[in-house]
Amino acid sequence: MNLATLLQARYDRQAPDSAVDPARWTGVIDQMLAHRSVRRHKPDPVTDAQLSALVAAAQSAATSSNLQVWSVVAVRDADTKARLAECAGGQGHVAAAPVVLMWLVDLARLEAVAQSLSLPHAALDSLEMFLVGAIDAALAAQNAMLAAESMGLAGCYIGGMRNQPEQVAELLGLPPKVFALFGMTLGVEEPEPAPAAIKPRLPQSVVLHSERYRPVAEQMDGVGAYNEAMAAFYASQGMNVRGTWAVHSSRRVADDAALTGRDRLSEALRGMGFPLK
Amino acid sequence: MNLATLLQARYDRQAPDSAVDPARWTGVIDQMLAHRSVRRHKPDPVTDAQLSALVAAAQSAATSSNLQVWSVVAVRDADTKARLAECAGGQGHVAAAPVVLMWLVDLARLEAVAQSLSLPHAALDSLEMFLVGAIDAALAAQNAMLAAESMGLAGCYIGGMRNQPEQVAELLGLPPKVFALFGMTLGVEEPEPAPAAIKPRLPQSVVLHSERYRPVAEQMDGVGAYNEAMAAFYASQGMNVRGTWAVHSSRRVADDAALTGRDRLSEALRGMGFPLK
Repeated sequence: MNLATLLQARYDRQAPDSAVDPARWTGVIDQMLAHRSVRRHKPDPVTDAQLSALVAAAQSAATSSNLQVWSVVAVRDADTKARLAECAGGQGHVAAAPVVLMWLVDLARLEAVAQSLSLPHAALDSLEMFLVGAIDAALAAQNAMLAAESMGLAGCYIGGMRNQPEQVAELLGLPPKVFALFGMTLGVEEPEPAPAAIKPRLPQSVVLHSERYRPVAEQMDGVGAYNEAMAAFYASQGMNVRGTWAVHSSRRVADDAALTGRDRLSEALRGMGFPLK
Repeated sequence: MNLATLLQARYDRQAPDSAVDPARWTGVIDQMLAHRSVRRHKPDPVTDAQLSALVAAAQSAATSSNLQVWSVVAVRDADTKARLAECAGGQGHVAAAPVVLMWLVDLARLEAVAQSLSLPHAALDSLEMFLVGAIDAALAAQNAMLAAESMGLAGCYIGGMRNQPEQVAELLGLPPKVFALFGMTLGVEEPEPAPAAIKPRLPQSVVLHSERYRPVAEQMDGVGAYNEAMAAFYASQGMNVRGTWAVHSSRRVADDAALTGRDRLSEALRGMGFPLK
């Protein structure tokens, strides 16, 4: 797809004028703009050589103070994938994907390193160190996703892995201080008669602020335009979505029940060796 | 640089054999492998067109349930940059960078959306929703970093923005439920006589697990090899680093003082509208 088409898909009629400068554009940005979540895969395996390349890409992302407090588990075993799919709320495509990468906040390795040197490591109990692990795992995972897409693979992040954190930890044999932040399916996309289109996002006037944060009241016009863009998107995809983006996004944060188990994440983490002090 | 050189830089003598398959390699992975943190910039500005392209790339990353609970503030004002540099522990390169992008967990927009519809939004008080914002902001930021690098820009993540979260929030005019997760400097790299080299990372045998998590005791040989790789790296860079990677990484998590203010992050967040329930 060309630049104008990609920007139109991503922003509907709200594309920022200043982005439309082909001289600024690169193949990397092109690939990013074309990103879609893919939930149907061919049975072709993801090879060890591909995995190594993905992980080399992941490890090349920035990591706070070079602490590298994350790990990744590559799951290909059919039974484990099926159980993970159940943990994530019964997502069949997780069981069917050739590989599921489980991205972990991993403070256990650094704890073992400090213990082996008889050095104190009390700050591993902090919210900050949990957050460092989450940020660095996310940066690494995004490199892996883009590297995979550049190799002709595709997939989808699985936040549902946080619905039942203890069960996921047991399936993966995680020790205390290791937490599965999210999953990621990968494989070769199975072409569909009507593949999912690129999903529009909020206008840049809403998410990009200059010098200081623009008050939320001033963002609501952009949200209104986005509701219309999403309504057009749902219609074009034959999706029967009730209410606007604003309505069903609000429903996602209505109450504890809307969090599908993740309302007890704080309690679960404390039981798994993360006091979050 | 060619593939073998990049892998050798990233893994020293621990490069995984299975990654060395040029047929699997892509330009995107090449760019990722060559990533370095850059802290010296030419005075050339980062233009609005470049910013728009970066943000289009950032918005194209995955976002949980399409909630898009992040924002970014582009700071070019010299006084604000200088104050942010102070907040981050006196990092002069932050003040000197042409632009500092401040990546925000933003639950305020979704709160305003729900309020405008008189819909409940109690789950915004959860740890889960804070974490969703942090993960999605990180995925977006990594797209922006890679997009920037593809356009010939370079920079560095600034985790020090969490040292004094309230002061940063005041500088950026952040309302409750908005938190500056990290900063990112960007600009054209100023060539140096001896530019920083690609930093080695832990061997893949340590961070990549197959089917189940490899016990930490079995990771320690790889950590030992990495200590040697980092010692060689420090020497090659003329860096006077006391102790091994294991020792100074342990020191980073020794106690509250090692967190340079971030030991009170949980308290700070609660005061900023994130109960983290």
